[in-house]
Amino acid sequence: MSDDQILANDQDAPEEEAYELNRRDVAAVLYAVDIGDRDRLVDLMEPLHAADIADLLEQINAFDRRRLIELYGVEFDGEILSELDEAIREDVIVVLRPEVLAEAVRELESDDVVDLLEDLEEPQQEAILDALDDADRVVVEQALSFPEESAGRLMQREVVTAPEHWNVGQTIDFLRSAEELPEQFYHVILVDPKHRPTGYVTLGKLMASPRARPLQEIVEDSFRTIPVDQDEGDVAYAFNQYHLISAPVVDADDRLVGVITIDDAMAVLDEEHEEDILRLAGVGEGSLTDRVIDTTRQRFPWLAVNLVTAVLASLVIALFEDVIAGFVALAVLMPIVASMGGNAGTQSLTVAVRAIATKDLTGSNVWRVIRREVLVGLVNGVIFAVVMGLVGIIWFGSPMLGVVIGIAMVVNLVVAGLAGTVIPVALEKIGVDPALASGAFVTTVTDVVGFFAFLGLAAVMLL
Amino acid sequence: MSDDQILANDQDAPEEEAYELNRRDVAAVLYAVDIGDRDRLVDLMEPLHAADIADLLEQINAFDRRRLIELYGVEFDGEILSELDEAIREDVIVVLRPEVLAEAVRELESDDVVDLLEDLEEPQQEAILDALDDADRVVVEQALSFPEESAGRLMQREVVTAPEHWNVGQTIDFLRSAEELPEQFYHVILVDPKHRPTGYVTLGKLMASPRARPLQEIVEDSFRTIPVDQDEGDVAYAFNQYHLISAPVVDADDRLVGVITIDDAMAVLDEEHEEDILRLAGVGEGSLTDRVIDTTRQRFPWLAVNLVTAVLASLVIALFEDVIAGFVALAVLMPIVASMGGNAGTQSLTVAVRAIATKDLTGSNVWRVIRREVLVGLVNGVIFAVVMGLVGIIWFGSPMLGVVIGIAMVVNLVVAGLAGTVIPVALEKIGVDPALASGAFVTTVTDVVGFFAFLGLAAVMLL
Repeated sequence: MSDDQILANDQDAPEEEAYELNRRDVAAVLYAVDIGDRDRLVDLMEPLHAADIADLLEQINAFDRRRLIELYGVEFDGEILSELDEAIREDVIVVLRPEVLAEAVRELESDDVVDLLEDLEEPQQEAILDALDDADRVVVEQALSFPEESAGRLMQREVVTAPEHWNVGQTIDFLRSAEELPEQFYHVILVDPKHRPTGYVTLGKLMASPRARPLQEIVEDSFRTIPVDQDEGDVAYAFNQYHLISAPVVDADDRLVGVITIDDAMAVLDEEHEEDILRLAGVGEGSLTDRVIDTTRQRFPWLAVNLVTAVLASLVIALFEDVIAGFVALAVLMPIVASMGGNAGTQSLTVAVRAIATKDLTGSNVWRVIRREVLVGLVNGVIFAVVMGLVGIIWFGSPMLGVVIGIAMVVNLVVAGLAGTVIPVALEKIGVDPALASGAFVTTVTDVVGFFAFLGLAAVMLL
Repeated sequence: MSDDQILANDQDAPEEEAYELNRRDVAAVLYAVDIGDRDRLVDLMEPLHAADIADLLEQINAFDRRRLIELYGVEFDGEILSELDEAIREDVIVVLRPEVLAEAVRELESDDVVDLLEDLEEPQQEAILDALDDADRVVVEQALSFPEESAGRLMQREVVTAPEHWNVGQTIDFLRSAEELPEQFYHVILVDPKHRPTGYVTLGKLMASPRARPLQEIVEDSFRTIPVDQDEGDVAYAFNQYHLISAPVVDADDRLVGVITIDDAMAVLDEEHEEDILRLAGVGEGSLTDRVIDTTRQRFPWLAVNLVTAVLASLVIALFEDVIAGFVALAVLMPIVASMGGNAGTQSLTVAVRAIATKDLTGSNVWRVIRREVLVGLVNGVIFAVVMGLVGIIWFGSPMLGVVIGIAMVVNLVVAGLAGTVIPVALEKIGVDPALASGAFVTTVTDVVGFFAFLGLAAVMLL
């Protein structure tokens, strides 16, 4: 493609491509790396946000990535590291010179260091911990003592508090004279004498209120505390459900131990969704930057499960070999029944899995939802039964074949609605992630029922 | 289930069920509605957040919902309305007495009113607009003049600005003496004389800085403006990518017109993800609260597309009727090849669709990704070819059948990797949402190729 064409493409780019890395910019960076021009590279990278630099590193190949990092040298900062996809983070750390790595990590906030360390192997963890000064290392090690994916890992420990009996003036004077305040904070947390949070006040409200007003009178309604061992997915849910901006984290005795801010909760929400989408498709933790062998390994189990499912379905077909031998049209039509059932089942199960994740499918409405899914399956089943019945009659000239495929279609779509709801709910009850396992079970049911209903009816009605 | 059992269940409830509506609480609310005890109902609802009340209304049936709202009367506030799922919002508005509705809406911030109005029919929109006082109505009508799902609809118009040459002291004095400040704000936006934003300062930094320091010296690095017509999905992406807490919105002349805060961006991110998951499963805009007829209608098109796909695959099978008649084992095994291809294709396409959404799959790496997917398909294909070859030999005692199914498996898994990447990328290029349409195309390809390869090879090699 010539340069002109690339330019034309860029100008025609639809609105959706806002924030996408520009292909020409990437090419310019790679050219600077090719000719080993460090100043040019630094100039080109300077306007990019660390998150965009991380994306760039993910999109180029391993060879270019290594050369780029070596040329970029000391400019490589900690934020890039914390934005990088886990899959290539380790590779990057290996390439970084120890002093660059140490400097990069020292710039980071403690919660970002924790996030970085979690996914690394032991020796790399040590290298990074050693780079921190003592105070930071203690904070990071404490955070790592909380369970993985818990609020304790997510929180920052720097908090701004005020005694609950203070008024606006006292609080402002305290903030104005404080030696050091966190980089980012949006609330002042009110604590009782035992350091238990009892409310919070936004900085905006503080600014807008007369000095004499007690803090108690301007606390936010949305105040909620988060237990330090709560799952990070639930933390993200709480932020989204209750429109929290930040929330105090408390230990088992309700004492304040840290604070979680909405930007971290948003990142978790994003990851959880990503995980759900990939799990529903049987992809596990996949990412574009994984190596072929890792990706193959991640996808293999799901395909293996599917193979078992498919063989089960084949065993059902094998029961009816004689019937098929006597009437080959059955072999032609049977995948249609199974496929429609599989799709309808996937629809129901996806809605159910999402509703479970958003806590909208509960004991209070589960029976109504099941009834609804079965009804939807019945209505769509009847419509497609008529269509397929007609296809059967026209294509193969056999009204009875039309009736058989029609009935099988209704049966399979009703079963799909039922299985697509009951299976995820049951998996959730027994503590298995419904996003991960529902698909295989539901497809097995719709394949087996689809083939059995169609071929069984054919055996009874056609022969 | 007895009361004791319910209690026991609650105590055993795993951590995941934090924030889920308690079944007993729902039952208590419904009992209060049953006996028409308004005081008891109000007492029970009082501790619930508006978002939880909305969830409760979504989870009970239409009859109970109507009775509850009637009994709850004037306590029903605007926030509940704005938390409600669109599917039942209209039903609820119809039930509300006009004066309750008017009062509820008046309490809301202008951006929440806009969000509420967007999805309503004309007469209901009018009713709500009439309830607002003149100033608010003008603001809401202006917001509605921006395109749907744009930054203009998402932003709030109340902003806090300071001339860019001010210092910390001037800004604090201004804030302390301001007549009215927005309910929620986290930054002071610096503007030039033409009201173009040039940076922003967090309230925390403002508090931490000496009075004489110029604002310019404490502006945030993360400063970015959002064009007023930008798609809300891109807005959410920018917040997540660049860790923004709030961002000024500008018109075509770069003048400040409003501000978007991260809580609204998080809600959009959540909706966009939800939409992607449901679209990938062919469910459209489905929700648990939709009526059976609406759900049936939403799911029908995807099933209809799948029927066409399945019939296409059947036409391929029909080409080989004679082959199947001569060797019925083929009918038994052929769904396995198609099913494995379909699953592998779904894996590839899901990864591709997600990577497109997160702007990680671009012109810079598309060829590398395609090559990788094909390789993954090849490796998994070879493994499953061996397994299925053995199954074919053991089950049917025909080594040649084993070879046929093995080759067909490799071919179909390679094609699945190719189609699963190329199809979403191509759809994106021509402006079709890949989440919505990729599934049908990829399955068609893997079904057709799977049946054709398996039966075609069988025709050549077995007969």
